[in-house]
Amino acid sequence: MAVTLVKLSCPDRVGLLAALTGFIAQHGGNLLEVSQFTDTRSSWFFVRMAIQTETLDMPLPHFREAFAPVAAELDAQWTIRAAESRMKVVVLVSKLGHCLADLLWRWRAGELSCDIPLIISNHDALREMAERESIAWKHVPISASGTTEAFAGLAELLRELQPDLVVLARYMRILPAELCREFAGKIMNIHHSFLPSFAGANAYARAYDRGVKLIGATCHYATAELDAGPIIDQEVIRVEHFHTPEDLVRLGRDCERLALARSVRWHLDERILIHGNRAIVFRD
Amino acid sequence: MAVTLVKLSCPDRVGLLAALTGFIAQHGGNLLEVSQFTDTRSSWFFVRMAIQTETLDMPLPHFREAFAPVAAELDAQWTIRAAESRMKVVVLVSKLGHCLADLLWRWRAGELSCDIPLIISNHDALREMAERESIAWKHVPISASGTTEAFAGLAELLRELQPDLVVLARYMRILPAELCREFAGKIMNIHHSFLPSFAGANAYARAYDRGVKLIGATCHYATAELDAGPIIDQEVIRVEHFHTPEDLVRLGRDCERLALARSVRWHLDERILIHGNRAIVFRD
Amino acid sequence: MAVTLVKLSCPDRVGLLAALTGFIAQHGGNLLEVSQFTDTRSSWFFVRMAIQTETLDMPLPHFREAFAPVAAELDAQWTIRAAESRMKVVVLVSKLGHCLADLLWRWRAGELSCDIPLIISNHDALREMAERESIAWKHVPISASGTTEAFAGLAELLRELQPDLVVLARYMRILPAELCREFAGKIMNIHHSFLPSFAGANAYARAYDRGVKLIGATCHYATAELDAGPIIDQEVIRVEHFHTPEDLVRLGRDCERLALARSVRWHLDERILIHGNRAIVFRD
Amino acid sequence: MAVTLVKLSCPDRVGLLAALTGFIAQHGGNLLEVSQFTDTRSSWFFVRMAIQTETLDMPLPHFREAFAPVAAELDAQWTIRAAESRMKVVVLVSKLGHCLADLLWRWRAGELSCDIPLIISNHDALREMAERESIAWKHVPISASGTTEAFAGLAELLRELQPDLVVLARYMRILPAELCREFAGKIMNIHHSFLPSFAGANAYARAYDRGVKLIGATCHYATAELDAGPIIDQEVIRVEHFHTPEDLVRLGRDCERLALARSVRWHLDERILIHGNRAIVFRD
Repeated sequence: MAVTLVKLSCPDRVGLLAALTGFIAQHGGNLLEVSQFTDTRSSWFFVRMAIQTETLDMPLPHFREAFAPVAAELDAQWTIRAAESRMKVVVLVSKLGHCLADLLWRWRAGELSCDIPLIISNHDALREMAERESIAWKHVPISASGTTEAFAGLAELLRELQPDLVVLARYMRILPAELCREFAGKIMNIHHSFLPSFAGANAYARAYDRGVKLIGATCHYATAELDAGPIIDQEVIRVEHFHTPEDLVRLGRDCERLALARSVRWHLDERILIHGNRAIVFRD
Repeated sequence: MAVTLVKLSCPDRVGLLAALTGFIAQHGGNLLEVSQFTDTRSSWFFVRMAIQTETLDMPLPHFREAFAPVAAELDAQWTIRAAESRMKVVVLVSKLGHCLADLLWRWRAGELSCDIPLIISNHDALREMAERESIAWKHVPISASGTTEAFAGLAELLRELQPDLVVLARYMRILPAELCREFAGKIMNIHHSFLPSFAGANAYARAYDRGVKLIGATCHYATAELDAGPIIDQEVIRVEHFHTPEDLVRLGRDCERLALARSVRWHLDERILIHGNRAIVFRD
Repeated sequence: MAVTLVKLSCPDRVGLLAALTGFIAQHGGNLLEVSQFTDTRSSWFFVRMAIQTETLDMPLPHFREAFAPVAAELDAQWTIRAAESRMKVVVLVSKLGHCLADLLWRWRAGELSCDIPLIISNHDALREMAERESIAWKHVPISASGTTEAFAGLAELLRELQPDLVVLARYMRILPAELCREFAGKIMNIHHSFLPSFAGANAYARAYDRGVKLIGATCHYATAELDAGPIIDQEVIRVEHFHTPEDLVRLGRDCERLALARSVRWHLDERILIHGNRAIVFRD
Repeated sequence: MAVTLVKLSCPDRVGLLAALTGFIAQHGGNLLEVSQFTDTRSSWFFVRMAIQTETLDMPLPHFREAFAPVAAELDAQWTIRAAESRMKVVVLVSKLGHCLADLLWRWRAGELSCDIPLIISNHDALREMAERESIAWKHVPISASGTTEAFAGLAELLRELQPDLVVLARYMRILPAELCREFAGKIMNIHHSFLPSFAGANAYARAYDRGVKLIGATCHYATAELDAGPIIDQEVIRVEHFHTPEDLVRLGRDCERLALARSVRWHLDERILIHGNRAIVFRD
């Protein structure tokens, strides 16, 4: 069964859902899933709808065209996409391979339905992992103090590829603010702490020093401000006094992998809508 | 702001949500919340909608009347209720007071918005807890082997009160199948294990004997078959080799209280739809 | 069975546990439980031992006396206590009653074995909860900007009572640093966030604003620095985009109650050893 | 730093820990970690000790010899092993690769310190995963109704290799009772349900049919009775009404991987002691 995904957010008003579902019904569309949320504090409306494509009375491009004036009238941000079309995902890594390995395994297993045209790294350590899966690999060295200029090559690569998602899978460099803005809502970072605790570097060592009893990981969209973008998912695990900083690193890896894998899946499946600094996530 | 809650389930068909939201829009209704689920395996449609009452162009009884033919046409089971109207909840207890104490505390704190016209017990142990809160208390002794006849008095009480919910808060008697059928979907039981493990009596002792590493509690609607009704919520906690059976009882109490309190809240808030032996729960 | 609890920490050296258990064996002591931890980073040794009192060849005060030179030789901090002796616990509250209600319920149920000679509050709102349980209640008003002088009366009360534990059960005032120092390791605070995130006031509102996907509570010992003392326990719960700030408050209450109740129990049971800013907790 | 691991269980008696730690101290041994548990219900004593090898006054084989009469006197079951010596682990798989992939990744990353001389499968589907890691692979086809005779070749392989651990990583065949007995305490199975719920086949489908709100995985030692051996670890994840049976399979995979990985690690690190049908696990 082919599925069409509609994602939309707009200022709230009376009759919104009726108007939208009415439009779909008018075109014969069978709704398989509707997830809706109204933020009464900001008076904003969010919806994700899955339509059985075969029931629509026109092909997708026409349907999109027909929908455009409706959405314009609502001042809406929206996308309509065939669920079967695969997003383009570029992964950025450094030396730590656990997140990449996990993503690749889930991708192979069919949990993550997307294309991965390229993996980019500032080191050459994980090249073999890419090659095993016959994925293109690009080594773009960038020093720790990498300026916007240093990132020019990387930015060029992304502009050429026009990915639907860039995953920072423990990429140990801070992207320039301009780049985050250019690809706003399309760059996802996994941070190795329970944000807003321990933003920045050395999160596990600082968690150890503070003597916390739970550690975690946070997946969020990257914005100009470090580790401050919209949070998509968080995961925690209990730790005790006998866990060393090295144990925290080990246990935290599982948190990172789980939070990142879920977040990527939701992005691919059009389950996330960003509003200001908040992520509305219709979990699956 | 007054809120009208619509809960409906019916066989699935194209245009259902459009028809329903269209009907509401036609009467000026502002939708505050819509939770929808289509079970594609059984082709069944479920929805819960919260409408801002003041925006409706007619009073609730008329709206209900106007809706009746729409629902009939859909072969739907449905209710329309003012969120402000308080459900009548009768609690049945025995000697263990932790669930009752928790419910009463949350009720006082405003987490559970309902009336509690009566607490019934087969012992007199917890009478003081009811009296403290000025709730009527009825001692209806029933032996462990209580037959349908033994339950006649209890059944009579329930028939008189016509509660919207009967909570078995660690009530240590098995209700007769007839009574479960008569109040189907309105009797909620908290079982002290992670069902279907350890249905029946002595669940913690049996969990200890099996050497499980997680214990739990299950809240479900009571049906004719013991501990086999639709599951509403479950809660677990990790245990280790050093926990005695008494520790399991202690730790399990917190699981029971949390799973029961959430389930009651969802029932009061019309968030649960029963379909066969499954509970569709639009969690809050 | 009577039980003697030994708690000890000291610089690490070879043969420590042998020396300690040997001393106990020499006096006929049957060890029921031994929990031990060596912090190899600070070369510090921690142990908690439970001895069957009846097997000791001398009464407790003599045993303590006999042990003193052994401990002195080790440069140890230690306590030896009859598990049956009940600690004196003073609870400080303000207007929010959920933590107090929970503690009192567990105390009545026997989960917390202690005496509660007094509840102190800067408001009179929860007086009835104390009176119901026949616990003394003292209203000590302190303004939000309470200086050390303002706390003089409170300090005097504590000095008179010499409690083994002071529980800040959502007490909305910041204790003066001097008071924290005077009762170091004896004042326990429940903070309504997952520390170090959102230390200070309005933690739930700030968590909502940040858009976190998990909220939590932290129980820690109070020190001169606000919300920065040794962490005893933390608890979290998942939240979603549809949860309002009010929902966070409601859901967080359960985290607060669980983390606080466990921490109090461990303190009463001599399961916590403080070392610098870390709490070694032998959980039960 | 080299580490010697001592694991011992025996009937309880006064002075046990003193005798054991005294023996170690007498030989100069510096204790790094001591985990102890006394089961007062069965009067049985369990201990795991980690000694800094260099501090012992004799080489390991002599120390073991010197310890033998002490242990004999206590009627103890025991092992003394250099932590650095790597256990031999044989993995049995079928067609599902997620557990194997996870184990291999953790093994490569250093989380699991062991040798893997052979992977055995009743299908040839995952051969490439073994070859990638240069691990020997053996295809031993066995039909679903495999009798003891059918398992003869497999049994022979295991007898030759004498592994310290056999991991059934979603191996879809039931080992003959004789084989389980021959390698008692050395065969670990990951079962795809929260045991004792849904023992046997099709666990996820049955969990779906029952409408549970949490699913899980259980890692246990294999015994003659199917899915009834000592439980090592369990993991759960919350599911909702919208999760299909296929979703349960997907979500359950993460539970299986986590519970299995932890259990294998604990076995390798001598953290598990079996007593009757219970597993005492000194978690790390």
